[in-house]
Amino acid sequence: MSTYDGTLIIFSGPSGSGKDTVLNELLQKHDDVKLSISATTRKPRENEVDGVHYYFISKEDFEKKIDDNEMLEYAVYGDNYYGTPKAPVDKWLTEGKTVILKIEVQGAEKIRKMYPEALSIFIMPPSLAVLEKRIRGRQSEKEEDIIKRLSIAKNELERACEYDFAVINDDLDDAVEDVASIIKAEKLRYKNMKNIISEVKKDV
Amino acid sequence: MSTYDGTLIIFSGPSGSGKDTVLNELLQKHDDVKLSISATTRKPRENEVDGVHYYFISKEDFEKKIDDNEMLEYAVYGDNYYGTPKAPVDKWLTEGKTVILKIEVQGAEKIRKMYPEALSIFIMPPSLAVLEKRIRGRQSEKEEDIIKRLSIAKNELERACEYDFAVINDDLDDAVEDVASIIKAEKLRYKNMKNIISEVKKDV
Repeated sequence: MSTYDGTLIIFSGPSGSGKDTVLNELLQKHDDVKLSISATTRKPRENEVDGVHYYFISKEDFEKKIDDNEMLEYAVYGDNYYGTPKAPVDKWLTEGKTVILKIEVQGAEKIRKMYPEALSIFIMPPSLAVLEKRIRGRQSEKEEDIIKRLSIAKNELERACEYDFAVINDDLDDAVEDVASIIKAEKLRYKNMKNIISEVKKDV
Repeated sequence: MSTYDGTLIIFSGPSGSGKDTVLNELLQKHDDVKLSISATTRKPRENEVDGVHYYFISKEDFEKKIDDNEMLEYAVYGDNYYGTPKAPVDKWLTEGKTVILKIEVQGAEKIRKMYPEALSIFIMPPSLAVLEKRIRGRQSEKEEDIIKRLSIAKNELERACEYDFAVINDDLDDAVEDVASIIKAEKLRYKNMKNIISEVKKDV
């Protein structure tokens, strides 16, 4: 990733962690942070908009993109494909932007190998009780789907240790501020401040 | 440093960077951040209080502490000794606190070797013109002292590259917030969140 000046942030969290809410707030407050939009073959939930929350595409289209190497990573999760189109990510990084990849833990593992300088953040619920309450709060699902989702979420929590940072989403504002601090601290690393420091040292 | 849970922060910046003002603001806003107080043999400036800004001690006392291994590091700077008493730093780190060591660049180099997990932050002025203005603003010094101080400060700027983070102190509030973000991000590292994560995963 040495040719890029931007920072890639791998952003994961189980169902019920509230990672989407955290991300939405973060993006509203920080214009310079870009969200990579994933593609998926699953059906949109109520209120989900194509090209905003996901690119909702058919299984056939998804498989064609895989064949054409247009997916940075993809994973099969439940009965569906989830993946990250490559082109916009590389474009933003070259422009020096902070790019957030919201991906499942399986995908995160692959991205970490391709972009070793990426930072990874895992969003967690404050407790298992809250996790279950949040998952049950989505009234669109059948009991068997809820139980399946809960079981997957609990397994995913065990993989927090693979991430650089963990953020507990109890109070939304605090969680958003935590993520913003991680992004800001990265910008303040000496290696990312070189251009600014050159300006400081210029004799007038 | 694996036996410590706290974070050691090496904090440096040339004369005129405003590092003391940044630190004072930071400490007022963050009770959990502790400042390691240095010892020095130089005379106090106006408004400097013994045991608050420095421990002002005699050359003889300083040399005795060196002999007794009670100094974490020390350096001769100008005509004076500057050093860091070891005991309070280790005590705070064992208690899990964030401890800030405000030290000269020479001392920073030594601390970095003894505490490889320490983070280091370099505070910079926004420009050389501002640096000179701030140094000249201290009316207590003779012109030859000012010129000497300015020359040392410019040399120190060249060593920013040895630090993990660089913070430009143009607007004071922004600089304080930058340092706070660096400290917060470090607390959110997975390795520092292990205890909290164990609580999250407890079944009720």
